[in-house]
Amino acid sequence: MPIGRKIWAIAEGYIPASSHGPEPEMTSHETACLLNTGDRDAHVTIMLYFTDREPAGPYKVTVGARRSCHIRFNDLNDPEPVPLGTPYSSTIVSDEPIVVQHTRLDSRQAENALITTIAYSQD
Amino acid sequence: MPIGRKIWAIAEGYIPASSHGPEPEMTSHETACLLNTGDRDAHVTIMLYFTDREPAGPYKVTVGARRSCHIRFNDLNDPEPVPLGTPYSSTIVSDEPIVVQHTRLDSRQAENALITTIAYSQD
Amino acid sequence: MPIGRKIWAIAEGYIPASSHGPEPEMTSHETACLLNTGDRDAHVTIMLYFTDREPAGPYKVTVGARRSCHIRFNDLNDPEPVPLGTPYSSTIVSDEPIVVQHTRLDSRQAENALITTIAYSQD
Amino acid sequence: MPIGRKIWAIAEGYIPASSHGPEPEMTSHETACLLNTGDRDAHVTIMLYFTDREPAGPYKVTVGARRSCHIRFNDLNDPEPVPLGTPYSSTIVSDEPIVVQHTRLDSRQAENALITTIAYSQD
Repeated sequence: MPIGRKIWAIAEGYIPASSHGPEPEMTSHETACLLNTGDRDAHVTIMLYFTDREPAGPYKVTVGARRSCHIRFNDLNDPEPVPLGTPYSSTIVSDEPIVVQHTRLDSRQAENALITTIAYSQD
Repeated sequence: MPIGRKIWAIAEGYIPASSHGPEPEMTSHETACLLNTGDRDAHVTIMLYFTDREPAGPYKVTVGARRSCHIRFNDLNDPEPVPLGTPYSSTIVSDEPIVVQHTRLDSRQAENALITTIAYSQD
Repeated sequence: MPIGRKIWAIAEGYIPASSHGPEPEMTSHETACLLNTGDRDAHVTIMLYFTDREPAGPYKVTVGARRSCHIRFNDLNDPEPVPLGTPYSSTIVSDEPIVVQHTRLDSRQAENALITTIAYSQD
Repeated sequence: MPIGRKIWAIAEGYIPASSHGPEPEMTSHETACLLNTGDRDAHVTIMLYFTDREPAGPYKVTVGARRSCHIRFNDLNDPEPVPLGTPYSSTIVSDEPIVVQHTRLDSRQAENALITTIAYSQD
């Protein structure tokens, strides 16, 4: 029995432009954690929304059957990289039910700060 | 296909009255991140609720079609500024479906602290 | 139009037993932020659940019409105080629709850490 | 009246491999907080999902009637321990309604960082 939904959104989005500490563990980053509990691979499309330009994407990701996939937005490069120090939002749409959670590690200062939330979902 | 709902609420609300670090990046602030994935502009009304007085507002914000808008509560001035160091709550009501996420950066101490959550929504 | 639901729960609960920084602002604490957007007072009952004893409560709180109420669990004393350094959970049940958000400030170390989440709700 | 749902998921999962401060309070850890408000014990099954291997589990936990249970993923050992420094996700399935909240304490640096969110739930 797959758990989750197919349509998700994260309204926050901001990759701090600076970091403290060893890379890549302590590099400031944003992550979308994707869980696919089903028995079929999930084909996922990520779109990025900005303040003053048209959306970027689609970014294509496959989450294998019965697999967890923690995607760093920092690592999205096709069709274009995610700009640092820039507010954005994202949508994550899958052809199979998944669960999405958003996390940021901010290491602009000497001690890191963390945030997380389950993303918004709908049927 | 627009993602989201039209009625949102954030029960937390508190802008720390002091800050450390360079402005405006590290100024203590609260943000409502609004995502409008639809093809029509979203006209948004924010109301603020307090402990011991009637609500403040309406604050009017427009989120363009296919745009992300990160609003700092610190920047809301019309009809009145948001008081610092004061507990409050907020509602965000839109004429188009949107997604809302709440974030605070607290830099009262030397190292910043961050919190976030997807806001409460209903149809 | 009141926003929210009448039944809420927070599974996390832990008031750190030590603090750094000026009281009461920087005292380690947990807060339930309650928002009542309606035109009638909300009469709220809080129950606390523990690992190895029967629940504590009921704690009675009134949230005025069109008011925000940030309740520190540290301040709940009737029928009994909330023990420090002890894991617990809570339920918040209201006779009017409200919105509930959970926040903790942890100042056990020199720099404070913060967490927040919209609570779980149901009809 | 029991509050909650029977199917829950947490897409984030990562136990930092290092810690600062006194054990076990300040050991880097992840917690699933489980609340059972009902009058029957809840029998809970946890499964862990990884990036590149089949799921681990089932881990069996019982949450007593009217009890809170804060489970450290660090303490799960049967059928196998949770690897440190490794991304994962989890599902929590119960035979009675429960409420689940996810928390991490990250003490890799001198000052601890905290995150929390109510987990994803469905009927």
